[in-house]
Amino acid sequence: MKRVPVWAMVALLSVAAPMVLAQPAGVTQQAASLRDAALTANDSYRFVEDLTTRFGARPAGSESERNASSWAVNELMRQGFENVRLQTFPLQIWERGEEKLEIIGPFAQSMAVTALGGSGATPPEGVEGEAALFETWQGFVDYMGDLKGKIVVILQPTPRTQTGVGYSVGAGSFRRHGPDMARERGAAGYVIRSLGTEDHRFAHTGATRWLGDEGIAALAISPPDAEQFGRILKLQREGKAGPVRLRLVSRPVFRGEGQSQNVIAEIKGSKYPDEVILIGGHIDSWDLGTGAVDDGAGMAVTYAAAKLIIDSGLRPERTIRLIFWGAEEVSQPDDKGLTGANAYAEGHELSKHVAAAESDFGADVIYALRLPVGDDPAFVKALSEVLMPLGVHIDKDPSTGGGPDTGPLNVKGVPVFNLRQNGYDYFDVHHTADDTMERIEAKKLDQNVAAWVSTVWLMANSRVRFQPTNK
Amino acid sequence: MKRVPVWAMVALLSVAAPMVLAQPAGVTQQAASLRDAALTANDSYRFVEDLTTRFGARPAGSESERNASSWAVNELMRQGFENVRLQTFPLQIWERGEEKLEIIGPFAQSMAVTALGGSGATPPEGVEGEAALFETWQGFVDYMGDLKGKIVVILQPTPRTQTGVGYSVGAGSFRRHGPDMARERGAAGYVIRSLGTEDHRFAHTGATRWLGDEGIAALAISPPDAEQFGRILKLQREGKAGPVRLRLVSRPVFRGEGQSQNVIAEIKGSKYPDEVILIGGHIDSWDLGTGAVDDGAGMAVTYAAAKLIIDSGLRPERTIRLIFWGAEEVSQPDDKGLTGANAYAEGHELSKHVAAAESDFGADVIYALRLPVGDDPAFVKALSEVLMPLGVHIDKDPSTGGGPDTGPLNVKGVPVFNLRQNGYDYFDVHHTADDTMERIEAKKLDQNVAAWVSTVWLMANSRVRFQPTNK
Repeated sequence: MKRVPVWAMVALLSVAAPMVLAQPAGVTQQAASLRDAALTANDSYRFVEDLTTRFGARPAGSESERNASSWAVNELMRQGFENVRLQTFPLQIWERGEEKLEIIGPFAQSMAVTALGGSGATPPEGVEGEAALFETWQGFVDYMGDLKGKIVVILQPTPRTQTGVGYSVGAGSFRRHGPDMARERGAAGYVIRSLGTEDHRFAHTGATRWLGDEGIAALAISPPDAEQFGRILKLQREGKAGPVRLRLVSRPVFRGEGQSQNVIAEIKGSKYPDEVILIGGHIDSWDLGTGAVDDGAGMAVTYAAAKLIIDSGLRPERTIRLIFWGAEEVSQPDDKGLTGANAYAEGHELSKHVAAAESDFGADVIYALRLPVGDDPAFVKALSEVLMPLGVHIDKDPSTGGGPDTGPLNVKGVPVFNLRQNGYDYFDVHHTADDTMERIEAKKLDQNVAAWVSTVWLMANSRVRFQPTNK
Repeated sequence: MKRVPVWAMVALLSVAAPMVLAQPAGVTQQAASLRDAALTANDSYRFVEDLTTRFGARPAGSESERNASSWAVNELMRQGFENVRLQTFPLQIWERGEEKLEIIGPFAQSMAVTALGGSGATPPEGVEGEAALFETWQGFVDYMGDLKGKIVVILQPTPRTQTGVGYSVGAGSFRRHGPDMARERGAAGYVIRSLGTEDHRFAHTGATRWLGDEGIAALAISPPDAEQFGRILKLQREGKAGPVRLRLVSRPVFRGEGQSQNVIAEIKGSKYPDEVILIGGHIDSWDLGTGAVDDGAGMAVTYAAAKLIIDSGLRPERTIRLIFWGAEEVSQPDDKGLTGANAYAEGHELSKHVAAAESDFGADVIYALRLPVGDDPAFVKALSEVLMPLGVHIDKDPSTGGGPDTGPLNVKGVPVFNLRQNGYDYFDVHHTADDTMERIEAKKLDQNVAAWVSTVWLMANSRVRFQPTNK
């Protein structure tokens, strides 16, 4: 059968309305009730507040991540989740050290910086060199001149978009591959403008390729510091400034093998317990903030959605599995990252996973749902009805991704769906020290929970079958 | 004669309109032309951009402050200012070192901190102690319990006000006197919530009393970190958390005597050259940001106002003196601070200073002018006419302050005036790493320049005499 997105079927069938088989009215009604309960419950805000207050930052493989996981196991059991368990797995640990970037001349000053996860170290006294300033990544790629002993600086800004596409471009190119390319060309250090959309003085960290003990030091500077380099570049072009000399210090440590863990819990299905709807967020965070937005919010939203179902006394026909992924924010020597997700995908039978999705795009409202290609227009019609009052429409494009940690599942054929959040401001805060509770609004989280609980309840009580979304 | 504010005279005379002697129409017309020229000149934005790009942060007594002063001397000469000179003076140097605050238990995590200027040092390994958390400064003052070996934490927030009154209260109490009081009671360390109105993760520095080598370590935490302590306090009250233990490291250095300088320049008066209108901003800044808002903006606005007069080819009757104050942001052993201002007040004949004002309240628009009590209603009437189109009214209250560096002059009898800026957002950025060019809007600076040039031109071409504003 040719793949037809479910929305198209709905559209076709809407024209010939009588042909649509109704979703059992009771289930739709239940979804609407759960949705409405979500809008006043505030469970998600309380959850992320408790998590971030108790554990602060939760770097992958850290004691803090481990403690947060134990706490989560207790909370989930206390709330009546079933089959609560940990899945442990090994990972390589990278830990931030001293970090500093100074302009020595012509205009001496300090920059606001943060090392990229997995990046290499300088000697204790740092490295000193002339700056090779590039306004764009492509400018660096195309550059034919000598970079030996220089410190490469990429000033390309990140576009502000609702979907985050601007971020993905930078993360996949100059944050990920830039350091290695600079090292191959003999550079002494590598600096990027943070993949951030704001103009405040926060540097944004994030994973680069695992560079190891032999790797080059790689830092991100805050957007205002990148603008400062831009102003110096302008003075250079006007003949008012000579070459820029930099001193860069970064002293991260590669600690060897450690351990992280996924936290898994369930609401067992009454009729099809082996059919699984998988939802969750990741429990680890970068070390700079308290990981409230990334990804305490995602954990909290999916937790609160599942908890509402338990609290309602209803039981779904299919199993709803909640997972708090460990070690999402990592660079690893095997070049894979997403260590918790890979461990799950390798350690579980996946053929009965009906669909999976992760909430990992901040704490702003959901505006659309993307579904995998499926076979049940009545399900989609009911879903559309229940979501519309939340300002959520069903997107005509089939989903191609369900959040980072569903990637390894998706590759193995698990269909993924995507409750799309407004990401317009997400990269203002993402991977910075400013990722704290103050960036979260309870009402927006509640809207998220309402969309998740509606979607999951209808999925778990339909016979909808989705096709794998990987290509 | 009883002191009557000039505005009151205007009000009275407005009723009996024919009695007001007209300000020479030519002068008012000139003020209006200068005002209009200011609104498109953009000189102030360029000036602060150049200053902050070239010198970054300019701590009092630093090489950077010195270099910025030499550069300013050159710029002022190049623009045609007269009698350009430096006034050097000694000061004691305090320099920030390593600084760190960690919650050890019950909820281990790191805080975003900055040491207060003039505060003491811990041993290299830091001090560890139980936190004594106080929601208000008064709570600490009234507390009768034992503080021996504890780390005092004051969580009082700063109210957001247009006038900045909320800041003044905190700066004069818990930032200034708190550390000494905590030390007297045996505390091992002292921490305040930053005197900042935003909820982003920036710690705000600022001067405390000079504590010296024997002094207690004193830090400010960012507003979100103070909120985090508040959440822990709530958990304690609910019986869900035990006492908080902290480890505090702060390693500032008292470097001994150094040198700073005021930069002084003039437009000589054609008719009354010994009568001086003194305006300016301070050239030094805290070490965290680039001092764009505090106080590059103030320097730039007063510089651009004076430059417009030079560029116009007009010459004022009285002398307009522009000063870039050195070492405003300091704590000093003599408990005075404002070292540049004190040096000026001691080193100059002040009897012919008609009026003085400093622009040192950010980069937002001016909404009012406060004048000292004076004797020339026609002057005030003309001024009111010229300022009104800028959205600036003449405040009925006589001025009681003209900016920090005019304080020592005021004490010695120099009348001060105040072009009042909107300070509603000023303490979002004040004394943080986020004080950069990105926080400045050129149009707002231009409005400032327009108000300054109008006011100064009319003052310098009237015979208005003000009474001393000190009480």
